[in-house]
Order: sequence, then structure tokens, then C-alpha cells
Amino acid sequence: MIETVTVIGRGRVGAAVAGRLAERGIDVRDQGDADVVLLCVPDSAIADVAGGLAPRQGWIGHVSGATPLAALDPHTRRFSLHPLQTFSRSRGPEQLDGAFAAVTGESAEALAIARELAELLGLEPFELADDRRALYHAGAAVASNYLVTLYRIASGLFEEAGAPPHALVPLMRRTIENGFELTGPIARGDWATVDAHLQAIRAARPEVEPVYRTLAEATAP
Amino acid sequence: MIETVTVIGRGRVGAAVAGRLAERGIDVRDQGDADVVLLCVPDSAIADVAGGLAPRQGWIGHVSGATPLAALDPHTRRFSLHPLQTFSRSRGPEQLDGAFAAVTGESAEALAIARELAELLGLEPFELADDRRALYHAGAAVASNYLVTLYRIASGLFEEAGAPPHALVPLMRRTIENGFELTGPIARGDWATVDAHLQAIRAARPEVEPVYRTLAEATAP
Repeated sequence: MIETVTVIGRGRVGAAVAGRLAERGIDVRDQGDADVVLLCVPDSAIADVAGGLAPRQGWIGHVSGATPLAALDPHTRRFSLHPLQTFSRSRGPEQLDGAFAAVTGESAEALAIARELAELLGLEPFELADDRRALYHAGAAVASNYLVTLYRIASGLFEEAGAPPHALVPLMRRTIENGFELTGPIARGDWATVDAHLQAIRAARPEVEPVYRTLAEATAP
Repeated sequence: MIETVTVIGRGRVGAAVAGRLAERGIDVRDQGDADVVLLCVPDSAIADVAGGLAPRQGWIGHVSGATPLAALDPHTRRFSLHPLQTFSRSRGPEQLDGAFAAVTGESAEALAIARELAELLGLEPFELADDRRALYHAGAAVASNYLVTLYRIASGLFEEAGAPPHALVPLMRRTIENGFELTGPIARGDWATVDAHLQAIRAARPEVEPVYRTLAEATAP
């Protein structure tokens, strides 16, 4: 049973994780050994930090999406737990609620520790193979980061049209609520409207045309 | 004051609109004259249907996003009201709640009728110039239709990685809730992770590479 956790790094994820563990009655430390040492540092720092830690009895894990377990060398009692969520500095541990987590380990024992930690954090764990992490993380980036990009692009078109960008929010929420059912001109095979979009974009925001076209091709059946 | 509305067409939008107007005590008709005749037909049919209607005392409007008012020729007491929402056949008039609507008219009187109708429907109206409709509608398509495309692409990468696609939903909802704050590798300037994504995509789902690259370029500052 996990009773003590050393959380190294208090960025967006580390702060939420440390806060939640404290809420759950875990003895949360900034340094030194513990049942679990959890690296919540930037991806590029994981190998350095892990390499600098003395060999230990307990477990060591990282919370990176794309980083393989080998970054935790030379430690062998290791795992990864990636909260599949976007974190804001202005919010607290409640950000973990309702999110899933990808857990990776090289033994049943490692996976059991990762799952136990996920449950303590209030995350719903699923297992992810170490060699599929980059592909998985690419999917997460497409879903979250490029959603921001879509909103920015749509907002720019709305501003140019004199329409209020915040009016897009109920539309985007409902698109998710409706189970991502495709509606609109491409779903209807209405290529005249798609052409009208392209003509308007070319005149007002030509830099948007490649994104619009590439996504139209990816959307068409 | 609007007391009678003829709703022509009972597709996704027409059904929700007719249902809501009836809930509000409006006398809703399938044909014939009324205070307002509202065309809820496919974009490509608007001009034909409008052209076939006898000249009338009342108002005529359409609910299309990209179609100009001229499609309602020869009628001159005309307007457009586009509910900025995605509609499912499996839901009712409550789909209109919380959504915005673009209203277009060529006179203060036409805009007043369109606003009155929007309020009856439970929509929050904003004015849209007739010559900006295509640009506006392109923005709506980017925000809603391409959101579906992002989810499909991300789901494909997740499936390939052995991760459950439904785990993306809380991530996408929170991205919206957090006001579209950009996080992830591009926000951090972590191009090593972006390269790892591209390498994984190229190996497993090469058809996704153009979309990933185009959106990465559109996302980078």
C-alpha cells in the first residue's frame, strides 16, 4: 500500500498530483526516498533527474505521455502514469476528477503500483504498452492541442465576419455531447458550400486555406 | 408580433424549430401564408422554393448559414436566421437552448423580425452582414465539423496504440472549459516530442501525417 510519495516538480501536473495525494492522507514529500518517487519534471529532464537519484527500495515513476520507461534508468522498479488531461495553473487537484490515465509497467507488480496510484489520484487507469507511448501521446495532442488551434482559426474567421467568437463555444460543446456526429456541408455532400467557404477564406484569411483544405480532405468519406 | 409561422421542411433544424415554436404557443403551419414563412430546406433548394411561393404580405426567412438573402428572390420582406448549433435527429427543441443565432436583414424592420423569432426559439441573436455569411459559416464548419475530424484522427491513433478512444472525451471537454488554453509539446516548445509524434504517425498511420503537420504549423507561435 502506498503511504508516502515524493513528488519531484510542482508544475501544472505536479501541483495537482501533490495536492490530491495530500487530500487522500498520503505523506507527500519534496525529496528523499518514499514508497513512490514520482517525477513531475519536464520530459527533457526526466533522464537527468532519474540518473541522479540513488538506488532505492521503493518505486519510481514519471507522468510524461510520450517518454519511454528507459528514461528512468538505471532504476528497474519503475512505471509511468500519464494523466490524460490538460491542466491549468489556476485550478487545483479537482482537475484530475473524471480523467483517464495511461499506466505503463514492465511487470504485474509495477502495473499494480501504477493502478493504485491512479486510483488514489481519482484517475481511471488503462494500460499502455511502452512502445506505443509516442503514438498515444500524438493522439492526445491532436485531440487537445489542435482543438485549441481549431478554435483560434474559427475565431479568426468569425472576427473577420463580424461575428462573436464566444458564440462558437455552445456549438463545440454540443458537437462533443452529440458523440461527434458529423453534420454540415461535407456530411451533406454539399460541395458548393465548401467552395464558397474556400473562396471566402482565400479573400479574407488566405493563411487558413491549407488547414481548411487538409481537414476537408481528412473529413470527406 | 409573430403569431403564425409556416415552417417548410422538417429536417434536423426544421423539426427542432417547429417544435419550439409550438411550445411557445405559436400557430405553426406546414404550408400557406403566415406572419413568417421559414424555409428549413436544404441550401440548394432555397431559391427554388422561394421562387415558387406567391408574393405575400408576411415575412420570409431561411435558416441557412452560408446562403445570401438574394436566394429568397423575388421576395423583399426577407431575413435569415441561422442557429449556430449542430442538430441531432434523436433530440428535440431543447437543442436550441443556449445556442447563438446569426441574423441578417436588409432593414431595421427585417432585423427586428429575425431577432423576435430568435428570442421565441430561445436563441441569442447577433447580427451578421449578408456578404460575410460564407466566411462566418466557414468558421462554424471549422469549429464543429473539423472537431469531429480531430476526434476521429485521435481515436485512430489511440486504437493503434491500444488506448480507449472514449478516454479522449474528458480531455476535449476540459480543453474547452479551460478557455482553449494551449498546453502540450508545442506550447512548451518541445520539438523533440513533436518529432517523436511524427515518427510514430509515419510508422503506424502515414495518412495522418499531412493533417498533423499542417496543424502543427498552424499551432506554432
